[in-house]
Amino acid sequence: MPIMVASDVIVQNKGKILIEKRGSEPFKGLFCLPGGRWEEGEKIEETAKREVKEEAGIDIEIKDILGVYSDPKRDPRGHTLTVVFIADAENEEIKAGSDAAEVFWIEPEKLELDEMAFDHGRIIKDYIEWLDKKETFWSSKG
Amino acid sequence: MPIMVASDVIVQNKGKILIEKRGSEPFKGLFCLPGGRWEEGEKIEETAKREVKEEAGIDIEIKDILGVYSDPKRDPRGHTLTVVFIADAENEEIKAGSDAAEVFWIEPEKLELDEMAFDHGRIIKDYIEWLDKKETFWSSKG
Repeated sequence: MPIMVASDVIVQNKGKILIEKRGSEPFKGLFCLPGGRWEEGEKIEETAKREVKEEAGIDIEIKDILGVYSDPKRDPRGHTLTVVFIADAENEEIKAGSDAAEVFWIEPEKLELDEMAFDHGRIIKDYIEWLDKKETFWSSKG
Repeated sequence: MPIMVASDVIVQNKGKILIEKRGSEPFKGLFCLPGGRWEEGEKIEETAKREVKEEAGIDIEIKDILGVYSDPKRDPRGHTLTVVFIADAENEEIKAGSDAAEVFWIEPEKLELDEMAFDHGRIIKDYIEWLDKKETFWSSKG
């Protein structure tokens, strides 16, 4: 099975972040970060911008890298490495598109992190730590 | 052509970093950071540790992510994304192995950054900036 690469994004806006309700399997109906598959010829930061635009209809400005997550078990479809960027929203009027059933802004502390798709609950937990310490993260970081 | 993923490492030791002279094409004879191809089933931080061990014979402790570089033109062999970690050397006795013709410790400011393999000169320039600001980097960051 081939190795896959994706980018997921923490899109910030006034203390809230952008969350999607998944419209398709795997994890249909669960919450996740916006993001998706890296395509050849694209820089990974362009993947991040394209996916947020497709799924929520907004432009973003990338500010930092939160981490790179590559545990072989993090995606049931196959071994997928994701580069997680932190970005600011350039506007706040969002509209669900692509495979997002719903999109909304929420304070990260209000999410049920144990009930999110993939390892996105863990990623958001790392982001809450990042807000204080500005560290970077990876799958096996303790 | 398939998308490729690699990890390269800034291995720190007493103000110096680990540099290799390449033993094979492309860029044979030029200097670069230790690193290499991600393999399925491996976490990307494990790729970093394995490659430094194979090429210089030492163990490392990963401390941070410097950046993710994915410009389609950065590797003549095909579109390659690299995750660059910053790590501390656990010992300083190095020995060239794998496709490194030579390995050595050097202060990053003493390298000819314009004459390095791939985009590794630019990556080391970003690392020198990181030493001050602890920011993260990506290919199109200004």
